[in-house]
Amino acid sequence: MAKSNDNGFHSITWEDDHLRIIDQTFLPSREIYTNLNTTGQVWEAIKNMKVRGAPAIGIAAAYGLYLGARDIRESSYESFYLEIERLKVYLESSRPTAVNLQWALNRILTTIQAHKEKEVSELKDIILQTAQTIHDEDERLCKTIGEIGLEIVPEEAQILTHCNTGALAASKFGTAFSVIWHAHRENKVNSIWVDETRPLLQGARLTAWELKKEKIPFKLITDNTAGFLMQQELVDLVIVGADRIAANGDTANKIGTYTLAVLAKAHDIPFYVAAPYSTIDLSIENGDTIPIEERDTAEVTKIGSKEIAPAKIEVYNPAFDVTPHHLITGFITDNGLIRPDYKKSLGNFADREVGLEK
Amino acid sequence: MAKSNDNGFHSITWEDDHLRIIDQTFLPSREIYTNLNTTGQVWEAIKNMKVRGAPAIGIAAAYGLYLGARDIRESSYESFYLEIERLKVYLESSRPTAVNLQWALNRILTTIQAHKEKEVSELKDIILQTAQTIHDEDERLCKTIGEIGLEIVPEEAQILTHCNTGALAASKFGTAFSVIWHAHRENKVNSIWVDETRPLLQGARLTAWELKKEKIPFKLITDNTAGFLMQQELVDLVIVGADRIAANGDTANKIGTYTLAVLAKAHDIPFYVAAPYSTIDLSIENGDTIPIEERDTAEVTKIGSKEIAPAKIEVYNPAFDVTPHHLITGFITDNGLIRPDYKKSLGNFADREVGLEK
Repeated sequence: MAKSNDNGFHSITWEDDHLRIIDQTFLPSREIYTNLNTTGQVWEAIKNMKVRGAPAIGIAAAYGLYLGARDIRESSYESFYLEIERLKVYLESSRPTAVNLQWALNRILTTIQAHKEKEVSELKDIILQTAQTIHDEDERLCKTIGEIGLEIVPEEAQILTHCNTGALAASKFGTAFSVIWHAHRENKVNSIWVDETRPLLQGARLTAWELKKEKIPFKLITDNTAGFLMQQELVDLVIVGADRIAANGDTANKIGTYTLAVLAKAHDIPFYVAAPYSTIDLSIENGDTIPIEERDTAEVTKIGSKEIAPAKIEVYNPAFDVTPHHLITGFITDNGLIRPDYKKSLGNFADREVGLEK
Repeated sequence: MAKSNDNGFHSITWEDDHLRIIDQTFLPSREIYTNLNTTGQVWEAIKNMKVRGAPAIGIAAAYGLYLGARDIRESSYESFYLEIERLKVYLESSRPTAVNLQWALNRILTTIQAHKEKEVSELKDIILQTAQTIHDEDERLCKTIGEIGLEIVPEEAQILTHCNTGALAASKFGTAFSVIWHAHRENKVNSIWVDETRPLLQGARLTAWELKKEKIPFKLITDNTAGFLMQQELVDLVIVGADRIAANGDTANKIGTYTLAVLAKAHDIPFYVAAPYSTIDLSIENGDTIPIEERDTAEVTKIGSKEIAPAKIEVYNPAFDVTPHHLITGFITDNGLIRPDYKKSLGNFADREVGLEK
């Protein structure tokens, strides 16, 4: 069950009776693994971004549901299901913006509903198996995203990416990172621009760490430098991940994504979103109703233990923004490369399971 | 001679025989003052941004020239002037992008040239007097910038500003900060958005510190949040400072300024540059030839002593960018509010010394 990438780190591993994660808050200085034995520990790990990245938190939450489910003492289906629903609502509250988390938990609940006749002990096994299936599928679909994405990468590409979308954020390969990884293997990458991604510095801490491990050439920049690079014609392509994609293509992703999309448009640079197809939430018409998580002010005023701002000031710290569909050149998904008009095209790709057929 | 603002801090003070500065690298946690006794100490303070902000480094460099000049043992005008020129070239090397530094030093050299008949000891006095005049004038012109800027601030304004342009960056009031200060006094400010301004966090460390001292309401954001705020219609106006303005209006300022200008244009938000008229360098046609200072990689990879990125990686750290004139709504200068077409208008304001007439 262990998911490792070629460079020997495991972001999420199921080990017999518990979940083991690399605690991303210690990276890049220390590579520390943590065992999670309860739903509460998984909730806390997601909330405090020890495990993060839309696909990864979906996987972690699925196992987290099992960790709670296995201790449920109810013996009737109805009572058991009520408890499962309670765990689901609890886990969803850890990161409200990401749809993968909801998607993974809903998939488990739907699977249980299809096995009402089973014993509770069997249902518990089914939950674990479904979590493992979600985990396995994620690795395959991340590979598919990378292969499909090759098509849109020019030769000698200078690619700008935001936040972390690598093996830490998903299974092996990641999402936007998978496109970069595959393009590098095909010798199409000149260099990657990694923006640091304040406030939590996922670019500087995590993407730089993964690129270095993979020996992919890159340069780190502050978020403030992206516009200047585009003005100097040093960016051919922007690829980012996604936390939730509405039916019209509006995309919630890490704060700063929208700024990059506006900049890319102003400089006529292609702007792609790479994500599992499950990140598309056809139930919401557009981005207006996507909840935007606001996080703790200390993420902005402190770096590590160092105070970088005066004490007791007001801070506004939204964790995500929504990029409107008209700024997005295309979606690179495991179901294929999706072009506008998204209102029509996004739904049409629902049944194409390119990744899972391979 | 002491320049203090109403809240009792002195950014630059001439004290009998030496320069005294607040060491901005310790802010906001500690308010530490440092005495500078030699040209070399001033060079180092500018280079390492103990004193920073275009007007402030012009003032510091002027005093720095005197600190070197007073020790010159040459007795002939020609030999003395050669030494002064040498000091000028040396001081200019501390921050290549800022024109105020060159402007202040050139002004002193021009003044000396007009007094060739004087004794070297008298010339030394003239250098100090000119430095003090530049310092005094700066305070008056910063006030004028604030008063002139009032015109473009709407009621209940939500103003976004970048980097630090306050009394720390200039004399009392500052430049863009002066507009904010005066608008607040006229009850026109709803709230100020302060972006943290990576890598050196002048917004979080310095502007937040000054706004807090002045009791002007503000919220701190990451640089990544600016686009989202504009999208949410939470920004009415952007005002920034400048390090050098070309004859056509192209403006070099702290990295990230260009991104804000592109965002402002995309959201139809007025984007103003506030600066002393002396920041306009009519000798350069456009922004293409403005040298962009690249600074140390550690500014990006470390915050304080904390490493935030993997060791031994490549970093690109330009300190400035150039915002093209067509993205700038107007220039708020001590000589007046300057509107396009800048190729014509910027030069026309050269003889209007609004600030100095008051």
